[in-house]
Amino acid sequence: MASNNPVLNKIEELKPTFIKRLSDAIAIPAVSGDESLRPKVVEKAHFLAKQLKDLGFHDIQLKDLGVQPPPVSDSNLKLPPVILSRYGNNDSKNKKKTILIYGHYDVQPALKEDGWDTEPFTFYLDEEKQIMRGRGVTDDTGPLLGWLNVVQAYREAGKELPVNLITCFEGMEESGSIGLDKLIIEEADKYFKDVDTVCISDNYWLGTKKPVLTYGLRGCNYYQITIKGPKADLHSGVFGGCVAEPMIDLVHVLQSLVKPNGEIQIAGIKEMVAPVTETENQIYEKIDFSVEELNQAIGSKTSLYDNKRDILMHRWRYPSLSIHGVEGAFYGPGAKTVIPGQVIGKFSIRTVPDIDSKKLDQLVIDHCNKVFAELKSPNTFKTELVHDGNYWITDPFNKSFTAAARATKDIYGVEPDLTREGGSIPITLTFEKALKTNVLLLPMGRGDDAAHSINEKLDVSNYINGMKIMANYLLYYSED
Amino acid sequence: MASNNPVLNKIEELKPTFIKRLSDAIAIPAVSGDESLRPKVVEKAHFLAKQLKDLGFHDIQLKDLGVQPPPVSDSNLKLPPVILSRYGNNDSKNKKKTILIYGHYDVQPALKEDGWDTEPFTFYLDEEKQIMRGRGVTDDTGPLLGWLNVVQAYREAGKELPVNLITCFEGMEESGSIGLDKLIIEEADKYFKDVDTVCISDNYWLGTKKPVLTYGLRGCNYYQITIKGPKADLHSGVFGGCVAEPMIDLVHVLQSLVKPNGEIQIAGIKEMVAPVTETENQIYEKIDFSVEELNQAIGSKTSLYDNKRDILMHRWRYPSLSIHGVEGAFYGPGAKTVIPGQVIGKFSIRTVPDIDSKKLDQLVIDHCNKVFAELKSPNTFKTELVHDGNYWITDPFNKSFTAAARATKDIYGVEPDLTREGGSIPITLTFEKALKTNVLLLPMGRGDDAAHSINEKLDVSNYINGMKIMANYLLYYSED
Repeated sequence: MASNNPVLNKIEELKPTFIKRLSDAIAIPAVSGDESLRPKVVEKAHFLAKQLKDLGFHDIQLKDLGVQPPPVSDSNLKLPPVILSRYGNNDSKNKKKTILIYGHYDVQPALKEDGWDTEPFTFYLDEEKQIMRGRGVTDDTGPLLGWLNVVQAYREAGKELPVNLITCFEGMEESGSIGLDKLIIEEADKYFKDVDTVCISDNYWLGTKKPVLTYGLRGCNYYQITIKGPKADLHSGVFGGCVAEPMIDLVHVLQSLVKPNGEIQIAGIKEMVAPVTETENQIYEKIDFSVEELNQAIGSKTSLYDNKRDILMHRWRYPSLSIHGVEGAFYGPGAKTVIPGQVIGKFSIRTVPDIDSKKLDQLVIDHCNKVFAELKSPNTFKTELVHDGNYWITDPFNKSFTAAARATKDIYGVEPDLTREGGSIPITLTFEKALKTNVLLLPMGRGDDAAHSINEKLDVSNYINGMKIMANYLLYYSED
Repeated sequence: MASNNPVLNKIEELKPTFIKRLSDAIAIPAVSGDESLRPKVVEKAHFLAKQLKDLGFHDIQLKDLGVQPPPVSDSNLKLPPVILSRYGNNDSKNKKKTILIYGHYDVQPALKEDGWDTEPFTFYLDEEKQIMRGRGVTDDTGPLLGWLNVVQAYREAGKELPVNLITCFEGMEESGSIGLDKLIIEEADKYFKDVDTVCISDNYWLGTKKPVLTYGLRGCNYYQITIKGPKADLHSGVFGGCVAEPMIDLVHVLQSLVKPNGEIQIAGIKEMVAPVTETENQIYEKIDFSVEELNQAIGSKTSLYDNKRDILMHRWRYPSLSIHGVEGAFYGPGAKTVIPGQVIGKFSIRTVPDIDSKKLDQLVIDHCNKVFAELKSPNTFKTELVHDGNYWITDPFNKSFTAAARATKDIYGVEPDLTREGGSIPITLTFEKALKTNVLLLPMGRGDDAAHSINEKLDVSNYINGMKIMANYLLYYSED
């Protein structure tokens, strides 16, 4: 795979080092949503800070974001730090462009018992298929380390980095990026003052073969419904039939939110969604995607739509409501005859242009309160927002996207598809507004990487080729 | 507390020994509903067999019930043994009556994280309040050991036991008593052939002050609904809106089962319930119970009824439907943006005269299938019975009840209330039919003992007084 580009050759050569670095990082269970694992999230921040130092980054700061606001069990729980650092400097005779690299080092929860084939926090390399497995390999530890690896490749190839880099690596992305908005706004004219553009590698290709660049994201407002009845769990034989059961109330409220066909039943949301334009319709026609690819990704034929356009539009440009689960009820295997005393139902709504987030919260809370009132239950009831994050959309033909498209074509030989994403990286919008600049989403992994699911993976080829694109993107963006 | 009865005095004297025996037994986490703890259930059987041997029981047999039938993860999982043993013998010159003592040594699941104040499988004695805490103290390890303790007291007081005893101690009661029916039927003319009556101490007083004898129980049919969609959990951002979510289907089906006011919505069940008679109405008027006692037991004012008669009738003589929880969905604290790929909803119906159990199963399955079909979901759906057990009702003025009422008045100074129970001990009916004899339910613990809940407890006074009642019951039943 030798090319005439010494940096790309160096990336190939350093492959074992880069895989080892990812393996070491995956071993730290940095689950931001599990309060008991918070020390591990902090440990991973320190691990990364050391890597940055060793690679020649400077002005490394672990920014303290204070304590985590409620709802939280430990009211003194500290948020994990945001890692700021620089590579390269501007001086009068050598003015380079500055790119801010955002990534997150925290991960989703994962237990072997969830159904993983190997321990989720023990890195596993399938030598034959050249696939790496472990919680965080694709979301987002692999892509984050990609940038560090690219710097190492430039250094060891004896080439000067064509741009300056600033890192902004956070540890709360999987839990609503709490505290990061404020930090970005505060540092906009300080640490981030020279930033020309922002690049985020925290999403995925649409399918498994064609690289993409991403110009839009849905937002996410996450809610919980708490219903309290008896002060402790009860025996359903002894008390069943004479007490109002919180779990029964809960399924009545949850089912009122959404139909099995995906139609959200909360009044007023549909009216806020921007209508589909003719231009938009045409973009969707061009994209390389099929119902079969969706079926393969989900491993079943349980799609709600039978054509590419409807599927993609419902992933990218329409809101959706998912019910994630229930805290407090019986969840184990087998049979337990319990009446749970308190249950907490969890659901979230993916938001799109032009949904107003605050108005959405009010519609959701009003709807739940109204449905619960109709149940005439003596139990106590509360619906609350757990975290929110805005949707984002940008121009896919600006300078940064053009550089990235050229870099992608170098490596994969094809023009990348221009896509939107159903998932949320709410901080994208904050960067855009606070730094008054553009943001590029440059995904490294494939659509079947199983982020947030069991057996999360990243193909070695995506890791390596992803770095090569990053390396050339820095070069092309530095030109002109 | 000295009396002129040496056996009762001996029970007082041996209190520390009896508490130690319960403490040792509680330390074994014999959770029959958790396949991974099956070796512990078997360990507890061996622990009890040794105690029986040391106390002079003979013909001790640990009856093998074979492998556990589906649904079960390990298709070779063996059922825990039933412990049969004898105390005393019939010979020609000394013909005693024989009482079969039933108890169960398995327990409900319990984790400290559920909210226990102490480790559930570490016995805790509150010295000041004289209350014992631990999973199984009241359900049913304490009462089961009560019989062993009574034999020890008779022996150490130098008194011959006035009856013969046969034990039948099982290890699957909390999981549907799988295999026990068959064993009882098989042993009816063999090991159990001399049995004159059966006594079961596996329920509770109605309240916290007045002892009771129990002449009726509800049955329990436990069901699970399995809905499968994607082959693994999905990221709700990436796939939300374009796949049919099993969890959304599930809440729609679950809410169709029962109204928040407790009214079961499955057609055909109400029609099978025996009508209330005038005599029955009068029995309910006499019972010492109030709405306030219910509120105290449940720790909240979330009763569905505002008067004694409705509350007791809905606990004892009407069916109820409880939703226990969901396996496969997100259940932890915090926020996880997952679309569960497969969910299993658990619910059960408490049954009463004259509900036909098989007909009930069919009504439930037909109802669920009908509701699911109306959802027009592409997911796969199955409703199945996990375990069932019949209701039971008997004459509360027979010889065994009369002996127990007299023994109770000796110790507590009052006539016991004659009650029914909302809970299920399905094996009661099997004993009655297979052995062609009566069954007495003689509870030891109080209504607030928190069986199946956190901080399960048994007052030391109930443990000791319960044994004294058992001791005198054996005596009075032997007379005549």
